[in-house]
Amino acid sequence: MANKEFDTPEAVETAFYDAFSRMDLDLMSAVWGEDAHVLCIHPGSGLLRGKSAVMESWMEIFSGNVPPVVEHRFVDGFAAGNLAVRLVEELIRPRDKSPEAANRVLATNVYVRDARSWRLAEHHASLPLVERGTAAAAERRLH
Amino acid sequence: MANKEFDTPEAVETAFYDAFSRMDLDLMSAVWGEDAHVLCIHPGSGLLRGKSAVMESWMEIFSGNVPPVVEHRFVDGFAAGNLAVRLVEELIRPRDKSPEAANRVLATNVYVRDARSWRLAEHHASLPLVERGTAAAAERRLH
Repeated sequence: MANKEFDTPEAVETAFYDAFSRMDLDLMSAVWGEDAHVLCIHPGSGLLRGKSAVMESWMEIFSGNVPPVVEHRFVDGFAAGNLAVRLVEELIRPRDKSPEAANRVLATNVYVRDARSWRLAEHHASLPLVERGTAAAAERRLH
Repeated sequence: MANKEFDTPEAVETAFYDAFSRMDLDLMSAVWGEDAHVLCIHPGSGLLRGKSAVMESWMEIFSGNVPPVVEHRFVDGFAAGNLAVRLVEELIRPRDKSPEAANRVLATNVYVRDARSWRLAEHHASLPLVERGTAAAAERRLH
């Protein structure tokens, strides 16, 4: 599995969400780059840097949970050479809940191609806690 | 100001945080690309797409506020050709508060170079509401 290769950023993305929804640690590990240069921000959380910190977090997330339903939808993105940025909307819910009960997460996923394969280099996810109209109010609270 | 040009992603980034801390709408407008392809997620908020929606949000944020102190620090990033991704830590506080009282924001900034200049194409900001150790607990609450 560590040798799994991905021909496109889209293929990595599909594998990432497959790994998440199946709680498949081997596939999750294959999705990410190998080095200290990977970055992961879970919703509402701080920054994790490096493959081992990132994988430890997924191990914790998967531990003691039942596999969730994770749907994702590409929103927009940017690409050049060996680098691709894809903003996606994630809909995450327990398997026994209806789609309306899903948590909506916005994630910016950054993919980098090395000599052999595209890999996930950064996952920055956040929960839209307030709706669009009150974004400014939320930002004001920060100041 | 609309014709202002930036030679590097770093120059756009400096101008972006200058515009934020001075509440300078003209400079903020010059920083962003002109088209429908720009993306902005304020901390805890939903997605804004397109230059006019993004600028409207900054107008609201600046309206009725006094300019905050905004410090930023580059954490890590990725670049290829006309595309650059820079993860930064922002420290935002009212001018009359001490640095310890600053809100810490993590932001993934995406820059794209067009024919004339580098511009900000995406700003995805989030508040780390829980610390690293409890990231998994936070993620579990989503399922």
